[in-house]
Amino acid sequence: MTELQKLQKQVADFIKERDWTQFHEDPKNTLIALGAEVGELMEIYRFTTVEEARQRAKTRQTDVEDEIGDILYLILMFCEQNGIDLERAFQQKAKKRAEKYPIEKFKGINAKYNAL
Amino acid sequence: MTELQKLQKQVADFIKERDWTQFHEDPKNTLIALGAEVGELMEIYRFTTVEEARQRAKTRQTDVEDEIGDILYLILMFCEQNGIDLERAFQQKAKKRAEKYPIEKFKGINAKYNAL
Amino acid sequence: MTELQKLQKQVADFIKERDWTQFHEDPKNTLIALGAEVGELMEIYRFTTVEEARQRAKTRQTDVEDEIGDILYLILMFCEQNGIDLERAFQQKAKKRAEKYPIEKFKGINAKYNAL
Amino acid sequence: MTELQKLQKQVADFIKERDWTQFHEDPKNTLIALGAEVGELMEIYRFTTVEEARQRAKTRQTDVEDEIGDILYLILMFCEQNGIDLERAFQQKAKKRAEKYPIEKFKGINAKYNAL
Repeated sequence: MTELQKLQKQVADFIKERDWTQFHEDPKNTLIALGAEVGELMEIYRFTTVEEARQRAKTRQTDVEDEIGDILYLILMFCEQNGIDLERAFQQKAKKRAEKYPIEKFKGINAKYNAL
Repeated sequence: MTELQKLQKQVADFIKERDWTQFHEDPKNTLIALGAEVGELMEIYRFTTVEEARQRAKTRQTDVEDEIGDILYLILMFCEQNGIDLERAFQQKAKKRAEKYPIEKFKGINAKYNAL
Repeated sequence: MTELQKLQKQVADFIKERDWTQFHEDPKNTLIALGAEVGELMEIYRFTTVEEARQRAKTRQTDVEDEIGDILYLILMFCEQNGIDLERAFQQKAKKRAEKYPIEKFKGINAKYNAL
Repeated sequence: MTELQKLQKQVADFIKERDWTQFHEDPKNTLIALGAEVGELMEIYRFTTVEEARQRAKTRQTDVEDEIGDILYLILMFCEQNGIDLERAFQQKAKKRAEKYPIEKFKGINAKYNAL
């Protein structure tokens, strides 16, 4: 079992122990919870200057980390519900990203792959 | 190095090879990209019934996996930029979650921890 | 002045009276605040059944209305900052939507315009 | 009928003419569509500098306006489904906002109302 699979099992066990699976059958519910958590992370950066934003993970370290922890929890929950192997999904997309953005063409260039 | 740290290094290398660090200095940019990717995942579930939503990761498997892959990529990018250890953040919050939702009190109960 | 323009002026005045324009110069800040408010609305619907969700604007009426009020406030703020006439933008897109989804073709059909 | 009520009726008519009400019975579906549209607006501002972001509504005017138009469409759809009077919700929250942020206390100060 890889590390990400272990984390996913930890999430699955947490939910099963509490008999919460019944509330999670609609994947849209997990998406809405994910949207709520991403919103909470954004709240921490609300109306900050660039400089303040760059310091946020220091000045409000636990808050930022907790929201990041919640987001990963929901992604793992979503993968568990939908039979997705998170690491495989990550590497599958990483391969496409590398093909869409070859180093020689995009070095130092901030553009969408289909805009050049 | 743990597996998540290896994935984070993979993201960091991808960005450095393309000399893109300059575009990523404002963590708010990463948050906006994260919001965009979560939006793309939601788009796949737009106006689906519960039953359609439950099948979505099968009927549009690659699309769903690619978006999940993008979301993990951005979370790892955010952790890299902000000096966050993702697994530590996950476990720190998992501990709090277990304390807020003790099994005996929340078994089969769908309520916010502070609502009971 | 149309009603929406009056609401936009109300938002602009609220901000000017507090000398807050300085914090709002980056439109990305308004987007992040919008993401945070949409997240708060989603939070109210977190892990609800379809039936619970349909009752939410009754069972938690003020909470739902307050979040909707915040979202409109941020959209008007964004329009003010960026020189957008909200009603014109709405009607411009409404026209395109009607062209993309002709009644005879999409009556009772839940599909994206480019999927048929 | 106020202007916002007229816009809401326009949205309601558009949906009824296409017999789409059946797909919109779960308010969570409207929230997910709203999250998708906010994501599309964020996509337009992805990895921009502050200066680029400030010009975005000029350099990509139609794209920005179309997304703003879509967001207002979904908010009006949500209000229609859930029996919410958008202008009343806006003013109800505006009153609370003015009470939470009195001018004399918050002039030039960028802080959350409960942080001072």
